[in-house]
Amino acid sequence: MSKPRINTMEELSIAIGVSRPTLSRFFQDPKLVKAKTVARIEAGLARVEYVPNFFATRLNRKSTGMIGVIIPYLNDLFFTKLLEAVEVAAMEAGLTVITQCSHSDPVIEARAAETLMSMNVDGAIVAPLGDHSNEATQLKLKSRLPFVLMDSRPKTMPNVDFVGTNHQQSTGLITDYLCRVGEPPVFLAMPRVNFNALEREAAYINRMQEHGFEPEVIGTDLIQANWHFEDHGEAVLEAAFAQGKLIDRSILCVNDRVAIGAIRAAARHGLMPGRGANGGLRIAGHDDYPLCPYLNPALTTVAQNTGAIGRKAVSRLLQIIRGEVDESMAEITLFDGELKLRESA
Amino acid sequence: MSKPRINTMEELSIAIGVSRPTLSRFFQDPKLVKAKTVARIEAGLARVEYVPNFFATRLNRKSTGMIGVIIPYLNDLFFTKLLEAVEVAAMEAGLTVITQCSHSDPVIEARAAETLMSMNVDGAIVAPLGDHSNEATQLKLKSRLPFVLMDSRPKTMPNVDFVGTNHQQSTGLITDYLCRVGEPPVFLAMPRVNFNALEREAAYINRMQEHGFEPEVIGTDLIQANWHFEDHGEAVLEAAFAQGKLIDRSILCVNDRVAIGAIRAAARHGLMPGRGANGGLRIAGHDDYPLCPYLNPALTTVAQNTGAIGRKAVSRLLQIIRGEVDESMAEITLFDGELKLRESA
Repeated sequence: MSKPRINTMEELSIAIGVSRPTLSRFFQDPKLVKAKTVARIEAGLARVEYVPNFFATRLNRKSTGMIGVIIPYLNDLFFTKLLEAVEVAAMEAGLTVITQCSHSDPVIEARAAETLMSMNVDGAIVAPLGDHSNEATQLKLKSRLPFVLMDSRPKTMPNVDFVGTNHQQSTGLITDYLCRVGEPPVFLAMPRVNFNALEREAAYINRMQEHGFEPEVIGTDLIQANWHFEDHGEAVLEAAFAQGKLIDRSILCVNDRVAIGAIRAAARHGLMPGRGANGGLRIAGHDDYPLCPYLNPALTTVAQNTGAIGRKAVSRLLQIIRGEVDESMAEITLFDGELKLRESA
Repeated sequence: MSKPRINTMEELSIAIGVSRPTLSRFFQDPKLVKAKTVARIEAGLARVEYVPNFFATRLNRKSTGMIGVIIPYLNDLFFTKLLEAVEVAAMEAGLTVITQCSHSDPVIEARAAETLMSMNVDGAIVAPLGDHSNEATQLKLKSRLPFVLMDSRPKTMPNVDFVGTNHQQSTGLITDYLCRVGEPPVFLAMPRVNFNALEREAAYINRMQEHGFEPEVIGTDLIQANWHFEDHGEAVLEAAFAQGKLIDRSILCVNDRVAIGAIRAAARHGLMPGRGANGGLRIAGHDDYPLCPYLNPALTTVAQNTGAIGRKAVSRLLQIIRGEVDESMAEITLFDGELKLRESA
């Protein structure tokens, strides 16, 4: 009697009753798995006919068991959360993550890509800098390695595997909420260097128009050359509040770090966002930055699902590494945002 | 006429009039340096007799041009600032940084060390987890590679190169300040798993006793198993304020993230730290976490010099890699903290 034929790790996992991550570790090095589980996997492998794709791929490609990740900044807890999700998912798959940071500089981003290629990583996940990224950097990586873009993407790269947030949905959700509980919101944007910021701004404008409200976007001008998001939010609202403007409006900030600056400006003017019963100043953000619950007032926002984005980026990259995908078809995965109602709006 | 003999990169840098980082890049790959500078360096080298230590070392040791860094957590802007300082200093020296994160887990920390060794990095800089680090991990790295400990160190490893903050000085400085402007402070500590936290607690106690005040330490009990620093600070003060305790005291928090939670607890009880003219609640922290200026009230704290710590860790590691040190003598470098007076105290 011939043995049942197993073609993928998924099928093998089901046939043997051992999780995928455990199988990956076993194929990397049986010592990484409990002796009892090793026995179970070996007994299972004897019952089926299976050439492990992953293992075969690793042998063929001289796999290093490493994947590369490039993030744009280090001092931003949104990116550290995303990176943590990627690292945990990669560890579960038995991979080592080599992280490089672009430090806001396209030259460093390009060098990081070269570093990853010279190290022969099995694939790369990149969260790009924004519109001052050198696109050639991403395209070169993609031409040389299994490649997934994460978090934000240039409009000019539609045919690249991408995992991020559905900003149409997420920004729509919080715009709807703010329209429901008070005055239609003003959108506190930022200088237009960031793809996600632009997508959120566009999503806000769409949603306002659908409701028949006039969109109102502020803060797109660069106020200081060497700005941080918080400084920007604080400076824009400081200027408005000083003239008595916007003090009773709902303000939707393009991200939580801008909102942290906005709340700071409010405090300096003795304003307490979210405390007015009907009307009065409200401030909301986007991302669910880890410090939101500890702000005064705690920040109402819409959370990006960093856990799901990180896990999906790794699993998609693994599919590409293992040759389990049609390389001519890029997969775009967008996760929904989730409202986090706190005190500020 | 014999040429002057040059023994170190420092001497060479002075003799040729080209900076050390530029020389390092030149020896790594002349293409990394401007053509004009290459010409200048080559002309300089022709005038002296020099076997570049660094270059020789790299050849002998099959240098990879990479150094490894291990940090304990990702979602902490103190460690991202420190890592950024290390990365910038390493880039200036023409090195690639391979960062691994321990994710609060000694097993992952040990695996990170194995990863760095398997990659043949030229040396490693480690910020350890705390008293649940497996000390064998650090000792193994030290026995195999040029090695520098950063940020915190076990008392049991006195003879290891170390770069960090002088907590005796930094905590003394802010304790003095608080004693000067109000009531002698209470110290809001944390569960005793962290070497730096313990050093600060001891420094506070010493300084209070020098002033003839009774030290008062709170918050050393574990309140929730899966705690973050902010949760801890908030929970400890929430419990105190709910009983009407500490509402007019000065509270020195073991770090800024604990202070962020403390300020949150104050806000929930309608208390505004730092606003009372004489007496009244004051809250201060330690570290100068990047968000301190944006809190309400902005947090008074004592800054760790992360830039200097990161640069020194890299330059010390390079000295060890180049064999320019007496390996039997560990060098301990402690940088002073600097007061950052804001609104909360």
